[in-house]
Amino acid sequence: MIAPEVRLKLKAQLYCGEEIAMGPGKASLLEAIEAHCSISGAARAIGMSYRRAWLLVDVMNRCWQSPLVETSMGGARGGGAHVTALGRKVLSHYRALEMQLETATASADWAALVGWVGTLPREHPDG
Amino acid sequence: MIAPEVRLKLKAQLYCGEEIAMGPGKASLLEAIEAHCSISGAARAIGMSYRRAWLLVDVMNRCWQSPLVETSMGGARGGGAHVTALGRKVLSHYRALEMQLETATASADWAALVGWVGTLPREHPDG
Repeated sequence: MIAPEVRLKLKAQLYCGEEIAMGPGKASLLEAIEAHCSISGAARAIGMSYRRAWLLVDVMNRCWQSPLVETSMGGARGGGAHVTALGRKVLSHYRALEMQLETATASADWAALVGWVGTLPREHPDG
Repeated sequence: MIAPEVRLKLKAQLYCGEEIAMGPGKASLLEAIEAHCSISGAARAIGMSYRRAWLLVDVMNRCWQSPLVETSMGGARGGGAHVTALGRKVLSHYRALEMQLETATASADWAALVGWVGTLPREHPDG
C-alpha cells in the first residue's frame, strides 16, 4: 500500500495477546489463499516461503473466534485450503480499516511533512 | 502506541526513496535526543544500540531538506546533540499524523474486528 507519489506506508496490526491476528502480510496471504485454493499455491504467488505461510495461517486460526482458513487433507502434495466465511469478513473489514487510514494523507500535517522531505536521500558528504 | 485494551498498532512510515525518513523508531529517538541532548544518552534511554541510533540519525539527516539532528564535537565520549528547528516541526506533525490514524478505531470496521478477535491465541490442539 505504498505508491511512489505518496511515500507514506501505513500499517495496521491487530493484536491477539502477543500475536498479530491480522496485518498486511496475513491479509495478502488470505487473499492469495482465496485465489489459489491452496496454501502452497498462495505462498508461491506472493513470494512467501511455504513454512512462513503455514505459520501465519496457524496464528490466524488461533487468534479469532473460529479459524479463518480451513484445509482438507489430500494427495501427496497435501489438499486444498479455503478461506472461511469469518475469514472473508475479517479480510473485508481489515481492508476497509486500511482505507480509512489513508484519509490521514488529506491532512495539513501530511502536507507539511511532504513539503520538507526529499525524494531521495542525500549522499554522504564523505562517500 | 499500542494499548492493551485497544490491541491495534498503527505504524506510519514516511519514505524518502527506499529509506524511511520518519517512522515510530525515529520519532522516539528524536524525542529522546531532545530530552538527553546526546545520541548515546538517547539510545540508552530507549534501549537502542548506539550504532543503530547513529544509523537512524544519519538517515534522517539525509532525507529532509536540512538535518533534523545536529551534533557538536566534544570530549572523549563525543559531544552533545540537539534536535533542529526542522526536526521539532517534523516530529510534531508526525505525531499529529499518528493521532489522526487513531480515529480509525472509532469505525464500524474496527468494532467488527474487535468483536471477533480473541484476547489470547488458542493453544495448539496437539500442544
